[in-house]
Amino acid sequence: MSTGADVVIGRLLAGGVDVCFANPGTSEMHFVAALDHTPAMRAVLCLFEGVATGAADGYARIAGTPAATLLHLGPGLANGLANLHNARRAHSPVVNVVGDHATYHAAFDAPLQSDIEALAGWPDGVVVRPATASALANAVDEAIAAAVGPPGRVATVILPADYSWSTAEDTAAAVPAPSATGAEAGADIAPVAELLRTHGADTVLLLGGAATDAAGLTAAARISAAVGARALVETFPARLSRGAGVPPIERLAYLGEQAEQQLAGISHLVLVGARSPVAFFAYPGKPSGLVPRGTQIHTVEPADLDRLVEALAAPALSPAPAAPPTLPTGPLTVANWVEVIGALLPERAVIVDEANTSGLLLPAATAASPRHEVLTLTGGAIGQGLPVAVGAAVAAPDRPIIALQADGSALYTISALWTMAREQLDITVVILNNHAYAILQLELARVGSAATGPQSRSLLDLGNPDIDFVAIATGFGVPASRATTAEDLAEQFRAALGQPGPHLIDAAIPAWG
Amino acid sequence: MSTGADVVIGRLLAGGVDVCFANPGTSEMHFVAALDHTPAMRAVLCLFEGVATGAADGYARIAGTPAATLLHLGPGLANGLANLHNARRAHSPVVNVVGDHATYHAAFDAPLQSDIEALAGWPDGVVVRPATASALANAVDEAIAAAVGPPGRVATVILPADYSWSTAEDTAAAVPAPSATGAEAGADIAPVAELLRTHGADTVLLLGGAATDAAGLTAAARISAAVGARALVETFPARLSRGAGVPPIERLAYLGEQAEQQLAGISHLVLVGARSPVAFFAYPGKPSGLVPRGTQIHTVEPADLDRLVEALAAPALSPAPAAPPTLPTGPLTVANWVEVIGALLPERAVIVDEANTSGLLLPAATAASPRHEVLTLTGGAIGQGLPVAVGAAVAAPDRPIIALQADGSALYTISALWTMAREQLDITVVILNNHAYAILQLELARVGSAATGPQSRSLLDLGNPDIDFVAIATGFGVPASRATTAEDLAEQFRAALGQPGPHLIDAAIPAWG
Repeated sequence: MSTGADVVIGRLLAGGVDVCFANPGTSEMHFVAALDHTPAMRAVLCLFEGVATGAADGYARIAGTPAATLLHLGPGLANGLANLHNARRAHSPVVNVVGDHATYHAAFDAPLQSDIEALAGWPDGVVVRPATASALANAVDEAIAAAVGPPGRVATVILPADYSWSTAEDTAAAVPAPSATGAEAGADIAPVAELLRTHGADTVLLLGGAATDAAGLTAAARISAAVGARALVETFPARLSRGAGVPPIERLAYLGEQAEQQLAGISHLVLVGARSPVAFFAYPGKPSGLVPRGTQIHTVEPADLDRLVEALAAPALSPAPAAPPTLPTGPLTVANWVEVIGALLPERAVIVDEANTSGLLLPAATAASPRHEVLTLTGGAIGQGLPVAVGAAVAAPDRPIIALQADGSALYTISALWTMAREQLDITVVILNNHAYAILQLELARVGSAATGPQSRSLLDLGNPDIDFVAIATGFGVPASRATTAEDLAEQFRAALGQPGPHLIDAAIPAWG
Repeated sequence: MSTGADVVIGRLLAGGVDVCFANPGTSEMHFVAALDHTPAMRAVLCLFEGVATGAADGYARIAGTPAATLLHLGPGLANGLANLHNARRAHSPVVNVVGDHATYHAAFDAPLQSDIEALAGWPDGVVVRPATASALANAVDEAIAAAVGPPGRVATVILPADYSWSTAEDTAAAVPAPSATGAEAGADIAPVAELLRTHGADTVLLLGGAATDAAGLTAAARISAAVGARALVETFPARLSRGAGVPPIERLAYLGEQAEQQLAGISHLVLVGARSPVAFFAYPGKPSGLVPRGTQIHTVEPADLDRLVEALAAPALSPAPAAPPTLPTGPLTVANWVEVIGALLPERAVIVDEANTSGLLLPAATAASPRHEVLTLTGGAIGQGLPVAVGAAVAAPDRPIIALQADGSALYTISALWTMAREQLDITVVILNNHAYAILQLELARVGSAATGPQSRSLLDLGNPDIDFVAIATGFGVPASRATTAEDLAEQFRAALGQPGPHLIDAAIPAWG
């Protein structure tokens, strides 16, 4: 005899979802109990919901398939929303299972009662609330189908406790095969090919989504070389191939002023899996859209890039061999720490990049490193890096995961370190510790504010007291060390890569300027 | 010339809101800059939004007036929601200022764009989005008025960046005097008085809201003694007076089975500022409502309790003098750690109680301690304790704040420790470290699950690795120590109370059973 919780887990497994990042409470106890009958579902305990949802995002970016989360009623979902926002912007498929009070208990307005639908719909998500226990199986199937897309998205099944504990049967039909993860190839590419032949020199190809893998970047580079068009990658790609053998296509800059320069003078913009670029924030007297006035916008599906290469007869490239940087020496700076990473980056690494201002020079330093992938902060909701690293490591236990993490952003989801320790995930965390919200020091000037009084300075300063990430990591069970010179960082980074399990390096990086 | 941000801060100050718990981002930089012109507004930096909102709750519970929070767009508000849910259940007035993109930027769907209203309304909150910059002053006044109530509630002003940076004038009328924080006295109490005279023995007075201060508890105890009615305090009061001179009225139990026993056999229930009691969660085969069938329910405003005392001519009480517990010895247990607190509790302390299962014996141990107040987890969204302690300490810098904090719950908002250190708040944190979600171990059994397989056990276990709160606190700049015996705890607790600023004690308390 199976319960509703058994059915939910069974349908998740049938739909290819076999990892659940969990932070359960009382209303989820039957789901937890059911996990003991279904060892095929791997449950990973997270100590905060934002870790669970960020891990599901990271898992999906690497595995290409969704993980589940298990969250406790409205407040539990609320704590997970910021990283679901980032997952939405990454088009990551995520299936949340949010436990709810028993259906008949809702009318009593018990302390944890709230409007779960209002929250679950917020990240443009699909919400499925089964009407009866026997509707559970279809509800799970529906959520998985919605999550997988394409495009990938966040889907939430609300699981009332009484449905969880009811006797239930898996009455769903066979699981439909998951859809492909991108749009089909086959559109008419002749007009864009003609455009590129005739206006290549004043055209930019902006690459996003599925076009930022090695094949997409290579195709774009060939087209670029053949017709003189410039290629750029969207500012915050969900998953970007980099390193040896991959054309080091520049990313569109975060700072609108720089992005405007990158796009200056173009007449045509070809969007390949990317959205039309906009400024991250508005600033007094500066434009919100970044596309120059009069530019014509065209679109090409990433799946059609190879056909475009053929249509243009774009020759293969034989790039000049490049070498990673040599190891620098001396006190750590914003310029040399990235050279350490670039020099020592192992094969097949996954870089989770929430280095923010400290990482501005990272792309140049890693262009000639061994082939790797970079996962970025897609939605701007900080606190994404450590959880995404957890999920990436669960998805790819055989790959080294490198989390490059700004100090201020690390603290939103710092308990991710504990999950790394419990699961012995092969993650090397480098905290870029400049004791400041350095990006806000920059932004305070950019918004046109001349103020630098004591209250504003204090609100952007993470010193007084300085935060000791070695101590914090140790407290969560992650071995940690402190680096103040390039030599320290190189030695500690190499050592961390050479040992299994998580490690953290608290790297003292001065802020810019 | 003032900006919209200046106007917002000016109106907050005019409305009596002079503390802002802040976690700003780019869209809030003009607000941050404006703080330098308005030193009367105290800005307290929090490193996670749930710390800011929980601190605003704690501030309001002690000060009786709202604090502001400063949050960054939808994701920032999302991170603050769980503690706003608790604030809602505490009827705490809170005024959120949530920065938004410039109005004209919204259409560009920049990465951080989201539906802020959907989130701000979730905790049954009032949302004010000014239509123009010149509407800002009235918007702030409206939010303050809504927050103050009565009853106190969560109100949110959405502050678009372009309004913040626009030239603006304070065009609002004079600030209306804040309403009283409770309903007025003066209802017809004769029927309830008559009921109590004739049916006292089978009546329970359930006290909540404003009735849980010393005056309310004393009045209830007098009535109880005069007519034989039992008095109980709601399970999770927002602010409860306790200790010498205050009748130690029992709280309604968290466990429904116990609560049913407390209410068994009654015919009448008189709600004095409390809601009709319901089970926290639903359980198979157990009722959701806790009031026995056939019970008649009556209500009395807390402000009318004294008139009820008069109407019943209830004599003053002269309780037998009681003494706090003596200091225990030996390894720490769930029974003896509370005796250490009870024995050493200083005058006028504020206990922030998120001890959960470890704290079940706390009330008995502190009944005869010096007069103090207890702030509890009103909404069940864990991660409330450390932030509420921050807010209470800001509101009452002359009172010792004692945060009794379960280990698992501490980790949702652990960076509150840093704000304690920066602001040198006089808070003693005792972590009840049983290396488990012990309440869920209990709940797993209560929901009728017989499962105790490896996955379910693992999801309720916070060991592997054990969490070292001494190291974590040290990392955040809070001096910390570890206690394994009652003697350790007494020595460290006494030392912490004797020194200014925050301290943390990581107390090894075995779980029940």
